[in-house]
Amino acid sequence: MQKIEHLGIAVKDLKEANKIYQALLGVAPYKEERVASEGVVTSFFKTGESKIELLAATNENSPIAKFIAKKGEGIHHIAFAVADINAEVARLKKKGFVVLNDEPKRGADNKMVVFLHPKSANGVLVELCQEIKK
Amino acid sequence: MQKIEHLGIAVKDLKEANKIYQALLGVAPYKEERVASEGVVTSFFKTGESKIELLAATNENSPIAKFIAKKGEGIHHIAFAVADINAEVARLKKKGFVVLNDEPKRGADNKMVVFLHPKSANGVLVELCQEIKK
Repeated sequence: MQKIEHLGIAVKDLKEANKIYQALLGVAPYKEERVASEGVVTSFFKTGESKIELLAATNENSPIAKFIAKKGEGIHHIAFAVADINAEVARLKKKGFVVLNDEPKRGADNKMVVFLHPKSANGVLVELCQEIKK
Repeated sequence: MQKIEHLGIAVKDLKEANKIYQALLGVAPYKEERVASEGVVTSFFKTGESKIELLAATNENSPIAKFIAKKGEGIHHIAFAVADINAEVARLKKKGFVVLNDEPKRGADNKMVVFLHPKSANGVLVELCQEIKK
């Protein structure tokens, strides 16, 4: 793991949450992006070498809609930057971590991503992400 | 806000959780510290410019014991490094954020800390922390 790439926060209303996090962090979101496959619209804020990602559901089957229905708004996942996502997945599986998707899938912000099951990491949904080279 | 200083994760058993996060992050905790006033014992791992802080309760009145009883293990708070904590508190109060302790208190890892109410930030418990100069 190289660093905290971003922290994902589940919110009900992206526009309202953008205002709050802009006030908190003192910077505007540098982009918004829809990830249709996950049923989310996201916004990103820079803070140091990491990012805050706000995620709002675009339909009721979205994992974010289900998360908010169960737990309310709040921190949804933590993502770590990795240099070689396949090597990290292999390493972590050997250590006993449960991987939710063996095959990296396309996430927001130009990344290939893999999620680990929260039961592997004390209730924390962990995302590994590797930048897609252009 | 300068950067994500650390991410706090509430765990039941610090020793077991240390093993898991050492396997996940590929580094050992660089220190353990008791914060008697909060009823917690903590461990810290470096990841990039940020840290992961694991927190376990040392008594049943600890905020961490209450958090786990209500929500289970998982991400408890996000802490941002600030240069001038009193100035940040004043700035954020003007913007409408609810501050849990107006007066900075001593936290783990040589920091003065202030918490913002989760209702101010979409369900996220936000900590501001300023390094204590030696």
